Amino acid sequence: MINYPNGQQYQEVKKKTRQSKKSASELSISSANRGMAFEEDINQSNIYYRDKHICLITKRPTPINIVKVDYTKGAKITHAYFEEQSTTDYNGVYKGKYIDFEAKNTKNKTSFPLSNITKHQIEHLKLVIEHGGIAFFIIQFQLLGKVYLLDASYVIHFYEHGERKSIPLSCFEENGIEVEQSYNPRIKYIEAIDKKYF
Amino acid sequence: MINYPNGQQYQEVKKKTRQSKKSASELSISSANRGMAFEEDINQSNIYYRDKHICLITKRPTPINIVKVDYTKGAKITHAYFEEQSTTDYNGVYKGKYIDFEAKNTKNKTSFPLSNITKHQIEHLKLVIEHGGIAFFIIQFQLLGKVYLLDASYVIHFYEHGERKSIPLSCFEENGIEVEQSYNPRIKYIEAIDKKYF
Repeated sequence: MINYPNGQQYQEVKKKTRQSKKSASELSISSANRGMAFEEDINQSNIYYRDKHICLITKRPTPINIVKVDYTKGAKITHAYFEEQSTTDYNGVYKGKYIDFEAKNTKNKTSFPLSNITKHQIEHLKLVIEHGGIAFFIIQFQLLGKVYLLDASYVIHFYEHGERKSIPLSCFEENGIEVEQSYNPRIKYIEAIDKKYF
Repeated sequence: MINYPNGQQYQEVKKKTRQSKKSASELSISSANRGMAFEEDINQSNIYYRDKHICLITKRPTPINIVKVDYTKGAKITHAYFEEQSTTDYNGVYKGKYIDFEAKNTKNKTSFPLSNITKHQIEHLKLVIEHGGIAFFIIQFQLLGKVYLLDASYVIHFYEHGERKSIPLSCFEENGIEVEQSYNPRIKYIEAIDKKYF
């Protein structure tokens, strides 16, 4: 699963990921790769939680605008473009409640830049909160080795009222929940949800 | 929005849809078109409900398996395939509760055939129910001009234990909620959810 719309070289990254599965320690893992690795960690955790009957959270597929399909070759799409995700990447159900979140990673050590968050996503999260859903971000500070769950209300506040387009690390430390990382599931976000919302 | 994986001719259908917007009455609308029209009706209703701040239900994009991207032409996807949807098409939040449903139409007058429902979707809906979410189908019997909301438990039962792979109309009449159709929103499914679940 890859964040295609950011313009990175899909095929090159895919190739690198395959390599990294073989010998991760030998590679200088790029930022793109780390971002993908985090997304894969979340996806793996979702599968773990689903199979253990803990919750049901799924990743929304990346929206694609299809221009042309060749049906002489078994419905091969020959011309299409990535569309911007107007919602978040993840949603689902836990203890009957609606859960909605976005997962991002950053190399920044002191703040999380909001440049990758779109206005549509902010509007979407405001509606989730309005309708009584649980909305948050899971942010990986990869160079610090830390992952935080932060309620979406803080992100909305900084997006709309923050002087800088970023959220300082101190906001995560004070208002967020640190998410434990392990082998399986890799990102134990359900425990953080329990602490924060239940 | 189109159910691509069913193998119908995407471009031809797209063209027909454009025509039908111009002069629907002049056209003999095909089954595929009617199915698409129903999906568009649901999408239109979702937008209506979102804009009126009644609920937030979104359609999951069709999953696409991307094989090749040409970055010399602005991230043009040149080789990709449709993947089977392993969840339902729609989910979201209403009054804090998780909502998950599949919308289908049929030309059959006496029953809804389950041939278009996958085992993955059934497994998904069982988990939704297990985790306290609200799960249902919205089925349009297009030749009868009727739309029903039916709790997913009935569909699961018929899928797993039914002798025939279909749900008789009488089951919808006895256990479903008839969904009112109007101009805006076209499919008033929230009223049916209120009657059934709240």
